[in-house]
Amino acid sequence: MNKGSLLINKLIEQFASLPGIGWKTAQRLSYYILKLDEGRVKEFANILIEAKQKIKNCENCYNLTEEKYCKICLDESRDRKIVCLVEMPKDIISFEKTGEYKGVYHALHGLISPMDGIGPDKLYIKGLLKRIQTQGIEEVIMATNPTVEGEATAIYLSRLIKPMGIKTTRIAYGIPVGGELEYTDDLTLYKALENRNEI
Amino acid sequence: MNKGSLLINKLIEQFASLPGIGWKTAQRLSYYILKLDEGRVKEFANILIEAKQKIKNCENCYNLTEEKYCKICLDESRDRKIVCLVEMPKDIISFEKTGEYKGVYHALHGLISPMDGIGPDKLYIKGLLKRIQTQGIEEVIMATNPTVEGEATAIYLSRLIKPMGIKTTRIAYGIPVGGELEYTDDLTLYKALENRNEI
Repeated sequence: MNKGSLLINKLIEQFASLPGIGWKTAQRLSYYILKLDEGRVKEFANILIEAKQKIKNCENCYNLTEEKYCKICLDESRDRKIVCLVEMPKDIISFEKTGEYKGVYHALHGLISPMDGIGPDKLYIKGLLKRIQTQGIEEVIMATNPTVEGEATAIYLSRLIKPMGIKTTRIAYGIPVGGELEYTDDLTLYKALENRNEI
Repeated sequence: MNKGSLLINKLIEQFASLPGIGWKTAQRLSYYILKLDEGRVKEFANILIEAKQKIKNCENCYNLTEEKYCKICLDESRDRKIVCLVEMPKDIISFEKTGEYKGVYHALHGLISPMDGIGPDKLYIKGLLKRIQTQGIEEVIMATNPTVEGEATAIYLSRLIKPMGIKTTRIAYGIPVGGELEYTDDLTLYKALENRNEI
């Protein structure tokens, strides 16, 4: 479109190919890149390639790592008897940020979704079952998102794991801290009432 | 933050350093990159570097180009007697998209803004004056944005150029096509009335 340079269009196209980045934003980012020092642009480019080449899944829990096992799996101070089951490695970041959870994780890398043709075989379930059989796991916390797919996956897996003599739990539903009752949906309010605790 | 991989944080930081990209978006983009083929990531990285290295300013109009002169300046069919003066090269794209303008351009690469310490000396004004003296230019259209700085720059430059015997014009103010009168600000409505045309 810019008759002055074809490369700028290629750069804009690259940014625009990223999810949630429209053409206008891609244009803004491209012009920003052109204004940066060449060293900074090279750093960005190198980290893109390095990250893609070196980051892989932990062979135990499928969290992201640059080594064979991730730092959480290698951490001797973590309680390996409790496994928090999440959809994606990024969910592990969220739980780690609370600083409260001392157990370990397992990332499924997806949720069961028949509508999208994703069956249990597409997820890292086999690895989880192997861990349960060999690592003395006592509890699996289902920490998938509170969506239809997240629920279905949690139920599917608890039915699979419970018969193995493992305690399976689901993260609690309720009103978000700092949230307003007025804007909380009916189902969440109902769950918050149902799961009320004595104080 | 993700104890599994330090590289992923570096990648997220790179994206988060771009303007208008927050941490959550940077995270989303980073995970997207990890899911791409290595070839696609390398292509992205290479275009980043190539664009930064090869794209420069046209030596005549300061539009973006990979050559000495941009394609518009080299285009024999363009009317070189009319120059459309814009703030940034991206504004040239906007005018080119209309498909109606047949003149050439000049990009200032900024606007006069005393508040930000940007004086006329920081803009590509010298090159414009040289063009006026040597290229038989008859009209300069001030197409800077309708902001305080855009207005000030347009007025400053027209006072500089007009005495050289050059016709200086300003793009028209009025209601945007498809806009609604109800939501048009008072000043724009006033300008639209003032600049009414016989039909």
